Amino acid sequence: MSDDYPITQRNRIKRRHERGRYDKETVHAILDSALAAHISYVMDGQPYCTPTAFWREGEHLYWHGSSASRMIRFQGPGVPVCVTVMHLDALVLARSAFHHSVNYRSVMAFGTAHKVDDPAEKARALDGFVDRFYPGRSALLRPPSASEIKATTFIKMEIEEAAAKIRDTHVGDEDEDYELPIWAARYQVRQVVGEAEPCPRQHPDAQQPPPGMEAYRPGRTLDEIMTDTARYAEKA
Amino acid sequence: MSDDYPITQRNRIKRRHERGRYDKETVHAILDSALAAHISYVMDGQPYCTPTAFWREGEHLYWHGSSASRMIRFQGPGVPVCVTVMHLDALVLARSAFHHSVNYRSVMAFGTAHKVDDPAEKARALDGFVDRFYPGRSALLRPPSASEIKATTFIKMEIEEAAAKIRDTHVGDEDEDYELPIWAARYQVRQVVGEAEPCPRQHPDAQQPPPGMEAYRPGRTLDEIMTDTARYAEKA
Repeated sequence: MSDDYPITQRNRIKRRHERGRYDKETVHAILDSALAAHISYVMDGQPYCTPTAFWREGEHLYWHGSSASRMIRFQGPGVPVCVTVMHLDALVLARSAFHHSVNYRSVMAFGTAHKVDDPAEKARALDGFVDRFYPGRSALLRPPSASEIKATTFIKMEIEEAAAKIRDTHVGDEDEDYELPIWAARYQVRQVVGEAEPCPRQHPDAQQPPPGMEAYRPGRTLDEIMTDTARYAEKA
Repeated sequence: MSDDYPITQRNRIKRRHERGRYDKETVHAILDSALAAHISYVMDGQPYCTPTAFWREGEHLYWHGSSASRMIRFQGPGVPVCVTVMHLDALVLARSAFHHSVNYRSVMAFGTAHKVDDPAEKARALDGFVDRFYPGRSALLRPPSASEIKATTFIKMEIEEAAAKIRDTHVGDEDEDYELPIWAARYQVRQVVGEAEPCPRQHPDAQQPPPGMEAYRPGRTLDEIMTDTARYAEKA
């Protein structure tokens, strides 16, 4: 297996190509540190872009939805999609409008989405979807009913091409502009997960977070938690 | 002017329609609390989805980029786009896999993107883009050079249709499942902006944040700050 995605017209980073990365390690790390992606697809020439939770298994991305949803029904037979993930990491205020920027880690992944038809693969996905975010949780839940399974469709996409783009530096001004008495700065942005708020109708025998929730320590960022839980899921 | 967007095949919320909203106040509030949107467009039948900073003025959305970028060059002549914004607000862990969810506020806005050609409108956009995020900042900066202006293209889209979708509740389980001793909970997610980190090459006469940065108090969320600064920009 190559360590890099092929570079084609579709995924080549044209602007700021020094920010582009095509190695699978970088692409996977950005995907695995996210809970949600924006999935775009085309119906009758019109683009649609739907944010949804997703996860990666090797070179495949999965997402799911109601079997009756527009996106899911449309994607079932197999359609080209673009899956985009973006982490906003900082705001960057330069000395000129032109060099204002943000720090980010993003991925665009291209492939063909289609429905998961194989019952065994669907059964794995039903558990996998929960366990990827909350390790071991599927075994603790009330099992899915036949109607819930029927009402849920999983979509799968093999990553045919992908590219990552990263900006992770400080202010980058024109050399002569550093002489100007203009305030320039960076503000970090972090997506922080709070403490567990138990369901108000909690059963008295279920007062504590079960094993598997160790990654969810208060004050951690969502991308740290997602990265940890993706690693647990890979080992399981 | 109607207070609601028209409901068509394109923007109708089909699943979980109780979460859907078409009033402009709700749609605008979600757009104005965001720095970045995911913009999807179609080239040769292939969907692309690019995350980028954007802002709203009335019923128009603006974004910008390098005049040489693929997205910007392609959108210049006028193409259908979908602009999606999503705020992730909480993770919701239910007693069944089926009712696991997230809280979110999202908008899908549809329209035709095209290049801003009018020089006066482009000049306004050059300042407006900075001032929308950092009120009053454009007047403090080194003015843009002719080549910077040429290298920057602004894209504008009138919102033809839009829909918001919101989930903002706690765990929602099947009635009989509340009797089960299964731990269920919600975790709030907040996108927090840190303290200003001055540029390491700061000029000694520019040691303090200038007026206009009052919204950027440490610990505030990005959506609070974006909402505040959007209001300043509207008044200016």
